[in-house]
Amino acid sequence: MNILIVHAHPEAKSFCAALKNTAVSELTAQGHNVEVSDLYALNFNPVADKNDFIALENPDYFNYALEQRHAVENNLLSPQIQTELEKLQRCDLLLLNFPLYWFSVPAILKGWIDKVFVSGKIYGGRRIYNKAGLVGKKAAICLTLGGQEQMFNANDGIHGDINILLKPLIQGALGYVGFDVLKPFIAWHVPYISDEQRQKILEVWKNRLKNITTENKLYTFPNLDNYDKSLRKIKKENK
Amino acid sequence: MNILIVHAHPEAKSFCAALKNTAVSELTAQGHNVEVSDLYALNFNPVADKNDFIALENPDYFNYALEQRHAVENNLLSPQIQTELEKLQRCDLLLLNFPLYWFSVPAILKGWIDKVFVSGKIYGGRRIYNKAGLVGKKAAICLTLGGQEQMFNANDGIHGDINILLKPLIQGALGYVGFDVLKPFIAWHVPYISDEQRQKILEVWKNRLKNITTENKLYTFPNLDNYDKSLRKIKKENK
Repeated sequence: MNILIVHAHPEAKSFCAALKNTAVSELTAQGHNVEVSDLYALNFNPVADKNDFIALENPDYFNYALEQRHAVENNLLSPQIQTELEKLQRCDLLLLNFPLYWFSVPAILKGWIDKVFVSGKIYGGRRIYNKAGLVGKKAAICLTLGGQEQMFNANDGIHGDINILLKPLIQGALGYVGFDVLKPFIAWHVPYISDEQRQKILEVWKNRLKNITTENKLYTFPNLDNYDKSLRKIKKENK
Repeated sequence: MNILIVHAHPEAKSFCAALKNTAVSELTAQGHNVEVSDLYALNFNPVADKNDFIALENPDYFNYALEQRHAVENNLLSPQIQTELEKLQRCDLLLLNFPLYWFSVPAILKGWIDKVFVSGKIYGGRRIYNKAGLVGKKAAICLTLGGQEQMFNANDGIHGDINILLKPLIQGALGYVGFDVLKPFIAWHVPYISDEQRQKILEVWKNRLKNITTENKLYTFPNLDNYDKSLRKIKKENK
């Protein structure tokens, strides 16, 4: 299987990087073809702008999605984006590995999504969710955070259910482009626990990775067949 | 009143920029002191890394939040971040003006949040929500998107309730640092409507801006007084 790990932490000695390294070694040992996009090491530029295109369709009025569609048709994506797009298209499983910043991905990873999930190729118009470009592939997120699990308890945690906070990423980005999304792997309270506890988390991750390529999806996203032209759910008629 | 508008669109002739321009002219005409951080024009660097600090507390192990705390105490934030932080602290009302990318902010604006909401100054430990650094200030978001309102209908829209999708931004970032957050202003279906319809949206926005500085908050965020040390809600005892 082809596996792409997109990693977004500025410190190579971080626990987040250790989770990435664990995934690389475990999945490689299983015989998979593992590619890594280490966004900080790549000096990935997350700013979506004119420099993302070798030439513009409309230099007088810059519309990012329209330029993506034009560029992907005409081989005009910048080399950095083209390379990432090819990795994305090649993979059967995508792992996003990052520290949670403001209940979301760090800007460098947000930019990877903004720029590499290319309109016209990966999605577009009604080619979303189960009709999108990456249907058949799997994705999972692996994240580290300072907070503790009980702070995200759906009933009485101060921030509320983490699944709700992750929805823009899990459904709005990964599900939207067609991925089957697996259960998130969450390393809680990382800066405040012992080295022994961190080692334990790496072991749990390593064990989970043994079967991750055959895991079933956790989430159910909208099925376009159940929606009308205006993308509202079709009411089932009573008989 | 001091108002800071943070704008994040790569095309100066865009409708998103027209919304920003409307806010600048209307709020200036009202006599407010309006500052604008046009992130693309500023060439704002959204990548959180070592370059954000003039000197590091721990050059051997880079922890972003710890370096923020050290830097803000010792005047070691990079000039670009220090300037933005001072604008943020000066403002009574913050407007974030952006096109919705993947049900969230564009990477350049995510980076502004990652870097300018400085740990130790703006929040930290239990200094969150109603105990955070920006309590007493107001914030609102103004966003443009291609989608139509019915796609986000909480009952039958394909993507689900937009308030849920915006929760990481509205509660997880703005509420977390203490802002009272006003109702979002959302310009739907922007690329597909007529110029006349777009003009109408600008008028609605202009009218709303007439009283925005005295608007009441829309959202209720957690009150730390109701949470125990582990940040779980304290159960009210039955008498």
